[in-house]
Amino acid sequence: PYVNELSPRRWIHYVWKFAKEDTNRVTFAFKVGFAVLLVSLLILFRAPYEVFGTSIIWSILTVAIMFEYTVGATFNRGFNRALGSLLAGVFAIAVIQVAMSCGRVAEPYIIGFSIFLIGAITSFMKLWPSLVPYEYGFRVTLFTYCLIIVSGYRMGNPIRTAMDRLYSIAIGGIVAVLVNVLILPIWAGEQLHKELVACFNSVADSLEECVEKYFREGGSDDPEFSRTVMDDFPDEPAFKKCREILNSSAKLESLASSAKWEPPHGRFRHFFYPWPEYVKVGAVLRHCAYEVTALHGCLHSEIQAPHNLRCTFQPEISDATNHAAELIRTLAKDISNMKHNLHSSLLKQLHSSTERLQRSIDMHSYLLIPSTKPFNIDASFKLKECPMLGDPVQTESYHESMKKQQRKLYSWPSREVEEFEKDKTDAELIPRMRAFESTTALSLATFASLLIEFVARIDHLVDAVDVLAKMARFVEDE
Amino acid sequence: PYVNELSPRRWIHYVWKFAKEDTNRVTFAFKVGFAVLLVSLLILFRAPYEVFGTSIIWSILTVAIMFEYTVGATFNRGFNRALGSLLAGVFAIAVIQVAMSCGRVAEPYIIGFSIFLIGAITSFMKLWPSLVPYEYGFRVTLFTYCLIIVSGYRMGNPIRTAMDRLYSIAIGGIVAVLVNVLILPIWAGEQLHKELVACFNSVADSLEECVEKYFREGGSDDPEFSRTVMDDFPDEPAFKKCREILNSSAKLESLASSAKWEPPHGRFRHFFYPWPEYVKVGAVLRHCAYEVTALHGCLHSEIQAPHNLRCTFQPEISDATNHAAELIRTLAKDISNMKHNLHSSLLKQLHSSTERLQRSIDMHSYLLIPSTKPFNIDASFKLKECPMLGDPVQTESYHESMKKQQRKLYSWPSREVEEFEKDKTDAELIPRMRAFESTTALSLATFASLLIEFVARIDHLVDAVDVLAKMARFVEDE
Repeated sequence: PYVNELSPRRWIHYVWKFAKEDTNRVTFAFKVGFAVLLVSLLILFRAPYEVFGTSIIWSILTVAIMFEYTVGATFNRGFNRALGSLLAGVFAIAVIQVAMSCGRVAEPYIIGFSIFLIGAITSFMKLWPSLVPYEYGFRVTLFTYCLIIVSGYRMGNPIRTAMDRLYSIAIGGIVAVLVNVLILPIWAGEQLHKELVACFNSVADSLEECVEKYFREGGSDDPEFSRTVMDDFPDEPAFKKCREILNSSAKLESLASSAKWEPPHGRFRHFFYPWPEYVKVGAVLRHCAYEVTALHGCLHSEIQAPHNLRCTFQPEISDATNHAAELIRTLAKDISNMKHNLHSSLLKQLHSSTERLQRSIDMHSYLLIPSTKPFNIDASFKLKECPMLGDPVQTESYHESMKKQQRKLYSWPSREVEEFEKDKTDAELIPRMRAFESTTALSLATFASLLIEFVARIDHLVDAVDVLAKMARFVEDE
Repeated sequence: PYVNELSPRRWIHYVWKFAKEDTNRVTFAFKVGFAVLLVSLLILFRAPYEVFGTSIIWSILTVAIMFEYTVGATFNRGFNRALGSLLAGVFAIAVIQVAMSCGRVAEPYIIGFSIFLIGAITSFMKLWPSLVPYEYGFRVTLFTYCLIIVSGYRMGNPIRTAMDRLYSIAIGGIVAVLVNVLILPIWAGEQLHKELVACFNSVADSLEECVEKYFREGGSDDPEFSRTVMDDFPDEPAFKKCREILNSSAKLESLASSAKWEPPHGRFRHFFYPWPEYVKVGAVLRHCAYEVTALHGCLHSEIQAPHNLRCTFQPEISDATNHAAELIRTLAKDISNMKHNLHSSLLKQLHSSTERLQRSIDMHSYLLIPSTKPFNIDASFKLKECPMLGDPVQTESYHESMKKQQRKLYSWPSREVEEFEKDKTDAELIPRMRAFESTTALSLATFASLLIEFVARIDHLVDAVDVLAKMARFVEDE
């Protein structure tokens, strides 16, 4: 039966799928619930409440604000909060001492001015590029300072107030950290490790997808496809993931900076585990991904090589692609299993298949120039007019197929072919089409040469993974 | 005289430069100071303090947490805080009513369980992708709920507590919004507008830089250059900016989502100003930037065309590049001045220069295939062996220059040529070099064809800017 888009059943199904996709999400939710419950008990029971008084509510605030998804991020945030609160406490106590010694009249002015100053300074500092990661710490400093100094002013005994508050913040922080670490911890390092492996796999997937699509005839006929908005290719799931890699630097960096705060754990057993190296491997991989994007750009470019021409190099291109994808997947598997391998045989296979592709382009290069009619630019070149390729009938059919190609032209982002042609005046159209003819063939050369460049970059990827494996002391695999 | 890196004088100089670069930073800092001072006055003076009581300190917290750089972001955060606090207040009052009606014994259990439940639910919901932007709202809901319910339980009269707290949060929110809007407001819309214009300019700059460098001889000699870490080219300031564009989607989107909250202001005078359209233009521009990255990849690729070959197409490539850069800069200027222009003459110039480039490649295409020795794959092709290009002496000199090029090879990321050659066994080295010979020439074809594709994408950019200009009702410029 037809299920409504917004029906509760479908909705529950979505939530269930979302939770099942990554059970850590559920774990995280329950952990937060448990942590806030724990600190609430301090107030719900009479005994601790009588010891700590009303400022114990600050521990609830601390838990709610400090509890992050991963252990490292919680440590990091806790550090920000602790240092921020501490600094604020020290400033506040110092200013209060000064203000009190200046007499009852001057006191509110000094306090007011100090609040203004702290507000302005912390806000300015958090805009400084290298201090941006500590933005939260500056916020904490500001409001803790204001709270201590202002409520101290009204409630008397400001130093007692400050100490009480710092104690309860410490309690909240300790509860948050203990719950986060002791109950099913979610380690940023583990996440980073998995993320990198996933990145490798999606580069391999999208490379294969892209090349496979390049040789699929009529793939461009799909009307829905050519009309979709730019940046959104529904029939290319792997490329979508690959595009995410292009923007992954922030994610990898934040995971790595969280992971740095974590103690040795699980499979990452030694101190000073090289987390920043993961970011570097990620950067080299991103350079490979740029090449995949360029290949993908070729696939969806305005200028397209005719399908029959593409097929000439299909065996070599497919071969090189498969070897490249296999090597990348093997690297991913190695990282995933923390094994150290050199893969020289795979690398050799890849090199030789790329070589075959290059040789094939070399041999068939005359195909890439439909009408070879060299022009004398140099006096030393004494060339006769080259013979035309094929007889006139063939040439016409070639033109015919070109026209078809033009019509089928994958329009990017969402322009229709008619519109595209309409834009040009007739006088412009003709030379342009002629010019296209040669450039369409070169588009295939571009595709092949981008692929070769991709393979050249894989060498660096292998190097980077090798460095990582050595630094992280992966197990040698014979 | 020599100034120490960490000397206070240099440090003050840096801070001064940072502030001068964008005076909004100073404005922002002073505004935060002023806002916290304003709410502090509510406590420093006796009269308001006697009216509102101790819960007035919540307004300080609200200001410190809510005050954001731009007006839109402050509104957005304020909305999150208001809705979060309100929801928490409603939940808390409902649960308290239920708990109180269940009797003194059951009360703490019900309260404890409800805290756990709210903690788990809000934490789970904020992981849901479409709710991630409201992460802060969920956090506020959680801690406000805990604070109200727990302190209400201990201090009696929970509904009074809840109302007091909501009032003081409202006061804090109003102060933050008023200061942010009335005193030298920093509009997210204005920032977005400027950011997009800057993106256009840096694409144009880096295109020119990249092409200029491609034709500069000996640019690859710089030893420092080839040894720098990947992802870091110190002598390419414009490309650095261009690479930032690749990761700019998050920035543009967050600015656009902030700008949506802003009322009409300054130059953006009508309601429902099409801010999302800026993000779309940004996406099309990013697709152009991908092409620049691919060109840059060509510039730093393992496989390089010899310099003398590159020079053959220099006039046409430079011409097309200059026209493309000019068109992009003109578009940027139009957006900046909110003018609407079609630029058909510039576009025509660009198209014809690209056409010339295509024709030139067409004519000189024999240069791209060093040894034209076609292979009979089809029986219908009856070709005699093609004449070799140039005499043996020339061929040798070509080989010579190729060798030199190979030696100069820009190594990416930081591999030395010797190492690169050492890796290969001698048996492998020879066929590879031969194969390279043809692919190096194709590398130039790739460069040219990427440039042509870049121009093809500019058409879409012009379209996108046109749509933006219409939707934002830019002034027609005759």
